[in-house]
Amino acid sequence: MEEALAYAREHRARFVSSLLELVRIPSVSTAPDRAPDVTRAAEWLAAHMQSLGLAARVEPTARHPIVRADWVKAPGRPTILCYGHFDVQPAEPVELWRRPPFDPVVEDGVLYARGASDDKGQLLIHVAAIESILRTAGRLPVNVKFLLEGEEEIGSPSLATYVPRHHRALAADAALVSDGSLFAPGQPTLTTGLRGMLYTEIEVHGARRDLHSGQYGGAAPNAVAAAAGIVAALKDRHGRIRVPGFYTRVQAPTADEHAAWSRLPFQEGTYLQELGTEVAPGERGYSLLDRLWARPTLDVHGIAGGFIGEGMKTVIPARAVAKVSMRLVPDQRPDRVFKQFVRFVQRVAPPGVRVEVRRLGGAPPVLVSPEAPAVRAAARALQQVYGAAPVYTREGGSIPVVAAFSQALRIPTVLMGFGLKDDNLHAPNEKFALVNLHKGIETVIRFLHHVGE
Amino acid sequence: MEEALAYAREHRARFVSSLLELVRIPSVSTAPDRAPDVTRAAEWLAAHMQSLGLAARVEPTARHPIVRADWVKAPGRPTILCYGHFDVQPAEPVELWRRPPFDPVVEDGVLYARGASDDKGQLLIHVAAIESILRTAGRLPVNVKFLLEGEEEIGSPSLATYVPRHHRALAADAALVSDGSLFAPGQPTLTTGLRGMLYTEIEVHGARRDLHSGQYGGAAPNAVAAAAGIVAALKDRHGRIRVPGFYTRVQAPTADEHAAWSRLPFQEGTYLQELGTEVAPGERGYSLLDRLWARPTLDVHGIAGGFIGEGMKTVIPARAVAKVSMRLVPDQRPDRVFKQFVRFVQRVAPPGVRVEVRRLGGAPPVLVSPEAPAVRAAARALQQVYGAAPVYTREGGSIPVVAAFSQALRIPTVLMGFGLKDDNLHAPNEKFALVNLHKGIETVIRFLHHVGE
Repeated sequence: MEEALAYAREHRARFVSSLLELVRIPSVSTAPDRAPDVTRAAEWLAAHMQSLGLAARVEPTARHPIVRADWVKAPGRPTILCYGHFDVQPAEPVELWRRPPFDPVVEDGVLYARGASDDKGQLLIHVAAIESILRTAGRLPVNVKFLLEGEEEIGSPSLATYVPRHHRALAADAALVSDGSLFAPGQPTLTTGLRGMLYTEIEVHGARRDLHSGQYGGAAPNAVAAAAGIVAALKDRHGRIRVPGFYTRVQAPTADEHAAWSRLPFQEGTYLQELGTEVAPGERGYSLLDRLWARPTLDVHGIAGGFIGEGMKTVIPARAVAKVSMRLVPDQRPDRVFKQFVRFVQRVAPPGVRVEVRRLGGAPPVLVSPEAPAVRAAARALQQVYGAAPVYTREGGSIPVVAAFSQALRIPTVLMGFGLKDDNLHAPNEKFALVNLHKGIETVIRFLHHVGE
Repeated sequence: MEEALAYAREHRARFVSSLLELVRIPSVSTAPDRAPDVTRAAEWLAAHMQSLGLAARVEPTARHPIVRADWVKAPGRPTILCYGHFDVQPAEPVELWRRPPFDPVVEDGVLYARGASDDKGQLLIHVAAIESILRTAGRLPVNVKFLLEGEEEIGSPSLATYVPRHHRALAADAALVSDGSLFAPGQPTLTTGLRGMLYTEIEVHGARRDLHSGQYGGAAPNAVAAAAGIVAALKDRHGRIRVPGFYTRVQAPTADEHAAWSRLPFQEGTYLQELGTEVAPGERGYSLLDRLWARPTLDVHGIAGGFIGEGMKTVIPARAVAKVSMRLVPDQRPDRVFKQFVRFVQRVAPPGVRVEVRRLGGAPPVLVSPEAPAVRAAARALQQVYGAAPVYTREGGSIPVVAAFSQALRIPTVLMGFGLKDDNLHAPNEKFALVNLHKGIETVIRFLHHVGE
């Protein structure tokens, strides 16, 4: 292991050059004209991993390819499934970048480029760690399988079916995902929970056609008013979701988790400043971190229908669509919650309208035990590299692929991110601190050894 | 008068030809490239009225011209202000017309053309009546002033200031507006009330920027949810508007009005069929006609903000705008109601958001007494021509110019429409039954004589 760590230190400049090469490829998955670039990034990665001695290949999907690469020559040893994504968000608005987004520069140890932190820099951490071990020891202490996708920024449509369909080929003992951030600079962090999600669309039909509010106002159903009323009925004035049964399966965080969260360097004032508001409204009786990480929540994302142009138009809208999603926590299940939700929406719909509720997507919540061997190995590695014990946090968002690992492969996922909270993901001037690239490589080298012990 | 009526009968074909000429001009006021056509219609009318011996002129405004024409050679006699508009709605979707909208055809006594009923056919009724009297008697029994506009279909922006500014030149004893319809075919109708209007825009600001609902859901203000909540709070579940003081000045219709309405050939089943719904929701405890004509109401026209595209986007919207208008009845005043409304909206706004309420427009409600001399003259004329007593109805919509006549000129308006309910105003295949063109001309000839008696 020491040789591998020394190798990693010696080859820092080359690892950075590799990353520069990869971020130069504008692999924007949502832009149809960038599809060849997404494929180019896949081919670059497959070739790179093949050169390291891994059996790597590019697998086509309905849209952007998946890269698979295995090193499984350690029979009897654990298998780690390394996940990452090589597609990136669009760079627009490009004029807000201080340098061109796909023409990377390093300034004061920070790499500025689209994809630097999300996720090219972080997925190359895994690859560089493998290289460092293979080039020094000739073999890995564990089996490793790579699963890299080019569709994360468009919702991982292909992976949703790929993972269950290939559950034998992907069989592993734990997954490793580095696609997040440290809780604070220098503070190693392990994420032990992700909220699940249920995304719905509520369509309301009123009269046969839009009506004039002078002629019909007072005796006609208004689809936008009905949609607004349904949305308003979903939560009470204390922020509690009114869908019967919704909270039945919600588990409270453990006392250990609460104790750990209370020690986090989290300042509500800073959070409010970021929001730009004087309060952060939410469910009464819960701390802010509880509300963000451990409580289910519900948000409306938009209501379409009626007249939204400049000026006045006196229309009674005949149709409205509201987008509403819920973040779910253990042990809520999207299927069950969807049924409860549909029943409630139909019950609160006003007379004179017809309501359809559609499920657009969902992912179950994920909890990872800090006692899982892979998580303990990761904690040890982080402590050694950063000189501080990792904090255990949760995240309010969902990573559908982690839910798939949990459901289809039945394995825990080590969520060990090396970005920083202000890396400008999905925004202009995305960046990645190279100190975390290198510390990340050392951490993964140590992790792979510890998990094999 | 008999000579004038005979003249009108003799010249029926020529009156129709004039109308054909006028509807051939595609004077669509909202289409910038049709502006020359709107002016052409104004010039056609001014020239036509000049040829009849009226002092007619085209007056420019900031957008489309106004046509004024006076015959004021009957000192000591009442003065009637005839209003009409020569602009029309767009014809789109043109492919749904059975014949080109500006290439008129007459089939079975019905003229099909954009503007046939709204309002070119009806304004020419007034002009043809004047011609019939002037060409036979050489003089009119009353003074007549014409006020014709080319901006009705875009909300009469110029007229709103023109009427108060020219209140001396427009001084009259009553106004005559024919821009509506009979309650049923063959059933003469006088409209004695119009609802007023108050149109508002509610803007809600939450966080500094749109937020990710995974990362922030549970502890961030949602502007669309706040807008939906405000809209939902405006009415209770019985359809009653919850703004304190809103109903204080609402006057109930008279017993006579109620008795008249109960005799109208109005069928709730037909109304529901038109709506395409099983119920016509509205304020509890009031009849359908009461709710449409005599009760104030409130409708949301649209909510803008957040994500309304296809599929899923998990955004917590930072900003939302809701358009809400109220229809007002006597003696509600837009100014007073607006203050009450703003106070209530601010009170029900949830914590964490900032709310602005803007007033986009308004018009006071109008009541015309059936006892006003001009209305009695109109009733008598209608009875003579149609062989049936007119019904007195109200309309749920607002005609801002009528409110201006009431407020700036302090005169009642005779609202005597000759269209039919199914004339397809603002829709493809607009039509006008020529029987009502001719009956209208006879009615106005008689009206002008009776009002001068």
